[in-house]
Amino acid sequence: MEHFLGIDIGGTNVKCGLVSSEGELLEKTKYATTELQKENSTMESLVKVIGWELEKHSNVKKVGIGIPGTLSKDRNSTIDLPNIPDLAHTNVMGTLKAAYPDIIFHMENDANAAALGEFYFSKATMPDDFIFITLGTGVGGACIMDRKIFKGGNGNGLEIGHIIAGNGKTIENNIGKKGILGMALTTLEGYKGKSVLSDMGSLNAKKVIKAAQEEDKLAMEIFHEVGKYLGEAIVSAVRLFDIHTIIIGGGVSKTFHLVEKSMYKKIYDFLSPYYTDDLRIRLASLRNEAGIIGAASLCFIED
Amino acid sequence: MEHFLGIDIGGTNVKCGLVSSEGELLEKTKYATTELQKENSTMESLVKVIGWELEKHSNVKKVGIGIPGTLSKDRNSTIDLPNIPDLAHTNVMGTLKAAYPDIIFHMENDANAAALGEFYFSKATMPDDFIFITLGTGVGGACIMDRKIFKGGNGNGLEIGHIIAGNGKTIENNIGKKGILGMALTTLEGYKGKSVLSDMGSLNAKKVIKAAQEEDKLAMEIFHEVGKYLGEAIVSAVRLFDIHTIIIGGGVSKTFHLVEKSMYKKIYDFLSPYYTDDLRIRLASLRNEAGIIGAASLCFIED
Repeated sequence: MEHFLGIDIGGTNVKCGLVSSEGELLEKTKYATTELQKENSTMESLVKVIGWELEKHSNVKKVGIGIPGTLSKDRNSTIDLPNIPDLAHTNVMGTLKAAYPDIIFHMENDANAAALGEFYFSKATMPDDFIFITLGTGVGGACIMDRKIFKGGNGNGLEIGHIIAGNGKTIENNIGKKGILGMALTTLEGYKGKSVLSDMGSLNAKKVIKAAQEEDKLAMEIFHEVGKYLGEAIVSAVRLFDIHTIIIGGGVSKTFHLVEKSMYKKIYDFLSPYYTDDLRIRLASLRNEAGIIGAASLCFIED
Repeated sequence: MEHFLGIDIGGTNVKCGLVSSEGELLEKTKYATTELQKENSTMESLVKVIGWELEKHSNVKKVGIGIPGTLSKDRNSTIDLPNIPDLAHTNVMGTLKAAYPDIIFHMENDANAAALGEFYFSKATMPDDFIFITLGTGVGGACIMDRKIFKGGNGNGLEIGHIIAGNGKTIENNIGKKGILGMALTTLEGYKGKSVLSDMGSLNAKKVIKAAQEEDKLAMEIFHEVGKYLGEAIVSAVRLFDIHTIIIGGGVSKTFHLVEKSMYKKIYDFLSPYYTDDLRIRLASLRNEAGIIGAASLCFIED
């Protein structure tokens, strides 16, 4: 049986996973990104790590790699990687093909890879077109259109976190983790009621999320606000792409039940029945291992 | 020499033009849309009109049709046509092919057709990817990506007039003709200076445009505002499509020199050098006949 290697490169960890043709994660190894950077270059370390993995799994002939940054449209080289600067502007494909000529490599932006993983391996039935939004430290996006990753003109589309929200700031500045923390701090200042957030000392977005999950009123109010901005992002994306399925992933998406109401309010205020009649917005089904499985799913791309 | 028929269907007129393979308009006939609607149905009249045109021009084997509304993704049927309701939900292609089996028909949304016309027949060199924005009664959009019309998931993408601007209203509500008039009326109310707009009696967007072209300060200030919203629309579209060429058309675009400064200010506030280094924003080169030539250009689509 053919197995695939998925490599999820992140600012904190590089995760390698052996994935079956059914999208099952069979085995996983994790390397601290900073450790890999201690060598000559992250690229050099990556070549080594992939060598070890290929040695362990001799039945692997295809490797998919997810990259946290922008890529050339032909997917041979990286452009910008804010969290791993020494891997920026690197001909990753050229280096890997030279090192392992018998192996087929695929490289994609990590959000695109996660969306493709969802397309191939979601527990739900997936349509041919959907928009994928990740709510985390940043707000990322991807789009599967006609069963393929949508690249955009120069290769790096779907920067949904950077479109403009109804208050004139970007979506990410509003509802990225920093935005959520900022909202919490501002709201807390003038707040007359009781909130667990007042007693938590130095706040962060994680604490605000936890408080909201535990039904703290102020924290829940924050996510009511988050829903409005998420709704605005969806309105603009749906109008431009005419896609009616939206999949929400990322760590902050665990608050989805708290954002839904205000999100839908915004959407119904701005979208006509042509869009809303078959609109579906739901959580991603791949969770923790979406990165690895998404990277491996690049090996499944139909030609 | 092969000639093509371009048919630009509008709420006011249906324009038919004979177009050469170089995009030259050789001959033009115009029918009032209301006249065509007096028959049994606009569709029936359309079949007749096309018959007359084909009789006149026996060397025409291909006909392109631009439709002011939404279409099925396969481009066989219309969906909504706000200005010609009786042509909505009609199998236009089926009817035309049955009536003229030897002729090849193409149908597209009119903004998409105009963008394709610009792609094939612009006086300027065109890139493979660009976003087309029409400033008129409404604010329309289209996108050429990889040399093809971008349809979006369900066939009707690029509704750029309906994305959300930084003040929470849609782009079109801000800078469509009604939005421009509204801005003028509001600004005029509290205005202490002198403006020709005060003496014009009942205002409309056309008068505001004319006053701005004649350098009336208040009217120019309105288009300074328009530029901000246009800039916001461009920021969001560029972030989602990663396309760096924007073509501006439509009647209101004659004020482009007045909106540029504030438009670029907004763009440079929100887009990084990755986008702005090769950003090009310029006026469409096809003007009055963009509709007919765009419709005819549908016959040029590469397979």
